[in-house]
Amino acid sequence: MTDRTTVQNAQLALLLEVTGTPKPGNVDRERDFTDLRFEHFMAGAVGARPGLALAAEQEPVGHAFERAVAGMADQSAGNTQFGALLLLAPLVAAASEDELTPAGADRVVQSTTVSDAGEFYRAFEHVDVAVDDPPEGMEPLDVRRGSEAIPAIEERGLTLFDIMSQSADGDGIAAEWAGEFRRTFDAAATVLADDGPVPDRASRVFVALLAEEVDTFVVTRNGPDAAAEVQRRAQAVLDGAEEPSELAEELVARDINPGTTADIVAGALFIALERGLVV
Amino acid sequence: MTDRTTVQNAQLALLLEVTGTPKPGNVDRERDFTDLRFEHFMAGAVGARPGLALAAEQEPVGHAFERAVAGMADQSAGNTQFGALLLLAPLVAAASEDELTPAGADRVVQSTTVSDAGEFYRAFEHVDVAVDDPPEGMEPLDVRRGSEAIPAIEERGLTLFDIMSQSADGDGIAAEWAGEFRRTFDAAATVLADDGPVPDRASRVFVALLAEEVDTFVVTRNGPDAAAEVQRRAQAVLDGAEEPSELAEELVARDINPGTTADIVAGALFIALERGLVV
Repeated sequence: MTDRTTVQNAQLALLLEVTGTPKPGNVDRERDFTDLRFEHFMAGAVGARPGLALAAEQEPVGHAFERAVAGMADQSAGNTQFGALLLLAPLVAAASEDELTPAGADRVVQSTTVSDAGEFYRAFEHVDVAVDDPPEGMEPLDVRRGSEAIPAIEERGLTLFDIMSQSADGDGIAAEWAGEFRRTFDAAATVLADDGPVPDRASRVFVALLAEEVDTFVVTRNGPDAAAEVQRRAQAVLDGAEEPSELAEELVARDINPGTTADIVAGALFIALERGLVV
Repeated sequence: MTDRTTVQNAQLALLLEVTGTPKPGNVDRERDFTDLRFEHFMAGAVGARPGLALAAEQEPVGHAFERAVAGMADQSAGNTQFGALLLLAPLVAAASEDELTPAGADRVVQSTTVSDAGEFYRAFEHVDVAVDDPPEGMEPLDVRRGSEAIPAIEERGLTLFDIMSQSADGDGIAAEWAGEFRRTFDAAATVLADDGPVPDRASRVFVALLAEEVDTFVVTRNGPDAAAEVQRRAQAVLDGAEEPSELAEELVARDINPGTTADIVAGALFIALERGLVV
């Protein structure tokens, strides 16, 4: 068994996630986008650590997340691991209470406050994150307004859990918050039951998750047709009908990056490391 | 300018070092050895951090180094970054005193004590490190004896600087300790004067260092002829007469790993990050 702390496991999960290859459409050990490269994820994982440490020290999850994002953004490529940190902040908090279970993580997110919601909005000031336009009437709560939206949040008394629950239909990370982190815990079990080097397991579980549901980040950036195609072709990889490396090359060339699925892999690797996954 | 702390820059230097590719003979972003893989370096960099933090807090360099190695070794492949940490511990200490210069680093290592020497020996208990047999009459000081050698060190009143000075002829890291970290600082200047993505700069400076002097880790593990050949062929890469990627494949296949040169690159990247290198 390892002596790594919870925070070290969270940081290592971020590093192992980007190391897994091939992860079709993601930056991985073998692929970069022009302005979003492997080394930016290294710097993101280094910078995120103090925020993750706040989560482990039972600081409010929203504040820990905002600090993690601020540190992550201290590199030249902007958003690298925003969604992964949004999963890791509550998971680290749950782990530090010895409750890294679906119920334990659910308790953490259910007890978030209006102040946590404000910190979440503040985090959007550190990086550009691709998001959908808000539904009609919800413009005051557009995350792209950053801290300017805080009065509207306070007026409506929305907690961070409320915000995430409202976004669960269109955002795979919010769906994890609203649904006891089901896919993240399931993926952790898959990683633990697999064998071989950890980055290979990360690659395999990534493809399986991609085939299971549409990636909401692809929906937002490339549209529902592209997202449906990616899901279908990930299934073809599972069926042996398509080469994962070729799909990876094509998706990177088309700038289709299933980032939400990668974020879930990062969360799953953290849970697996906490449960004894050996690197 | 970045907000990263000195410790964060040291950790990032370890991560960027292994990301640089091609670095002929090393684990890099594109190459693994069978039992020493990229992910082990990720875990090593995560585990080393608390020891590096001790160096930044002005704890004795020997103790900081021993703790960094203990944390680094918390993965299944054994030695990943022993030599890099032996450079980083005094460099981080110098940086935290705002004296990250050859003279400042020299002051740090010159002021090491007999106790630091003992901690250095203790560090060898955490991992197997390839070292030469000691000269005749020096068997009591064989580092492979670990803490059992401490009484002999104390009897002779040897500081860690003394130990390193005695090894400077046959060990490239010890030579840095004994010689104001000349090659490490020079390589940092080279990295800063270069342009393009940081991992590409790491690759280029690695090949230049390899052509400049024999790698003492290769001398120890593969013999002087292999080390001379590696130096000659690195020069051929610089001259455009050999492809670096082909040399990388061949050296990995022959299990020739110029690890000392990689360690110096890690030290150089740390200095460059401290001086404003943008990732």
